[in-house]
Amino acid sequence: MQTPLTDLLAIDHPLLLAPMGTVAGGKLCAAVSDAGGLGLLGGGYGDAQWLERELDLLEGKRFGVGFITWSLARQPELLDLALEHRPEAVMFSFGEASAFVAKAAASGAKTICQVQSLAAARQARDWGADIIVAQGTEAGGHGGARSTFTLVPAVVDAVAPLPVVAAGGVADGRGLAAALMLGATGVLIGTRFFASDEALAAHGVKQRLLSAAGDETQRTRVFDLVRGYPWPDHFTGRAVANDFLQRWHGREAALSADLEAEQARYFEATARGDADTAVVFGGECLDLIAEQKPAAQIVAEIMQEAQARLSRF
Amino acid sequence: MQTPLTDLLAIDHPLLLAPMGTVAGGKLCAAVSDAGGLGLLGGGYGDAQWLERELDLLEGKRFGVGFITWSLARQPELLDLALEHRPEAVMFSFGEASAFVAKAAASGAKTICQVQSLAAARQARDWGADIIVAQGTEAGGHGGARSTFTLVPAVVDAVAPLPVVAAGGVADGRGLAAALMLGATGVLIGTRFFASDEALAAHGVKQRLLSAAGDETQRTRVFDLVRGYPWPDHFTGRAVANDFLQRWHGREAALSADLEAEQARYFEATARGDADTAVVFGGECLDLIAEQKPAAQIVAEIMQEAQARLSRF
Repeated sequence: MQTPLTDLLAIDHPLLLAPMGTVAGGKLCAAVSDAGGLGLLGGGYGDAQWLERELDLLEGKRFGVGFITWSLARQPELLDLALEHRPEAVMFSFGEASAFVAKAAASGAKTICQVQSLAAARQARDWGADIIVAQGTEAGGHGGARSTFTLVPAVVDAVAPLPVVAAGGVADGRGLAAALMLGATGVLIGTRFFASDEALAAHGVKQRLLSAAGDETQRTRVFDLVRGYPWPDHFTGRAVANDFLQRWHGREAALSADLEAEQARYFEATARGDADTAVVFGGECLDLIAEQKPAAQIVAEIMQEAQARLSRF
Repeated sequence: MQTPLTDLLAIDHPLLLAPMGTVAGGKLCAAVSDAGGLGLLGGGYGDAQWLERELDLLEGKRFGVGFITWSLARQPELLDLALEHRPEAVMFSFGEASAFVAKAAASGAKTICQVQSLAAARQARDWGADIIVAQGTEAGGHGGARSTFTLVPAVVDAVAPLPVVAAGGVADGRGLAAALMLGATGVLIGTRFFASDEALAAHGVKQRLLSAAGDETQRTRVFDLVRGYPWPDHFTGRAVANDFLQRWHGREAALSADLEAEQARYFEATARGDADTAVVFGGECLDLIAEQKPAAQIVAEIMQEAQARLSRF
């Protein structure tokens, strides 16, 4: 399936692995790239040791790296570390990325900016991004308020002729086919790969993801609060409404007031892989995800289903 | 373009006019039906005189009627009034509709239930609905929290083999083509037809809709509060963030405290067609809508664009 995205990144399938922080490690990245897409390593909040270790797993592979932009601004040397490993692409999400885009482009990597509004899309175009990811609110993890179904075509119109990739809600071949109809040149997939064999996550967390329904996820700040991450106001994280979320969502002031004790409890539970407390990031697409699978199988099934849909009409 | 929806309703195009209360009148309904879709009259909060007048305009036409279910429960005789005019279909949204579905079905009309979650979809199937509309949160006017892109395929899987129609965010041929890829058998379109020549709305309100961007809409309760409509908690209305919305959203208690005076101001402004105060319901698809057009042209353009997209792959 050839699109401007597959041409630009020299990949077989118009499918990118979302750079889920600490979850999209080297093994998952490699599996998605080997299957014909492009794996983006989840740089997350920035841990040089983690990054170096996972980058080493990608030696000789085609891959990209994704960063949380506001966090990268606090440790900009991590971009240099990533660029030393010659990624095909670098993706920036959530924040002012103009200097990072310029630096990554100068190194020869393709640059990808993820946006949640039309204003942000135009800004990313002006920074010189090669590819714009339009991310809808149905996405798991951090994101904004607009929905994929209308955000994608609106961004396509706003930044033409730049290639746009749809993110948020894509979990199967129906989603890929629909994204192409909306004018996207490909898709970026997170949650479906979170529930893959290769994802770096505790067994209990993956199990919780698989058993949850789309109606059970919601956008919240409570996990950022307890983990001590200073996210900008307009971004929230979509997670499964587990015990911790239900206890604190809407009671953020109370959580802040007792933060130290709650943090101790939270990190202890997370270390145990306790999915009632630890954040279980997941998108509204959870209804479409029933089984944990190898990433290569996920890619193959998505491509097959999309082709079947597209050829039916 | 033939789908199970076109077969079931004996229409040429898989496209339904959303029954926007007081906006989708007889003229707009007739225009959509004449163009090959099916117009659904906007029964809204129930005004027998309005309904009778608009139904009379549909004499000899194929059409449907849509009701706000919790409101219809307070004046169930309006369903009898509608059924006397032999609609092809009756649509129920927002509330417990089992008895209404049975009554409409017994009269020979097809029954359509609009849902915003998987639980509601299964319930509507159990009531015996012929068609399920899966409505995403990007829709203008009243709706829920789930997004179209993931809700549609999840509802398709949950109620198969019942035909599912996608609503929320569909404004052009890209949206129709994408909805079909997601497994829908057709689309229900509101906002795009609100900005049609035939829609019953003040000129200023239509102009405000045309000039607003998708990033400017939000879900709110303030217009329900000032208009005195007791909407169930889990439904909100998506509207353009005009002066009134910005003044009161998040300050609902203050609005309630001064309700009588604010209502007087609100209804006076609405009568003047003042779009800074009067509610301007609109979906996130506003970026895709630039001009007011005749409904027949809207239908023709959507069908043409969808066909072009579908045949490109």
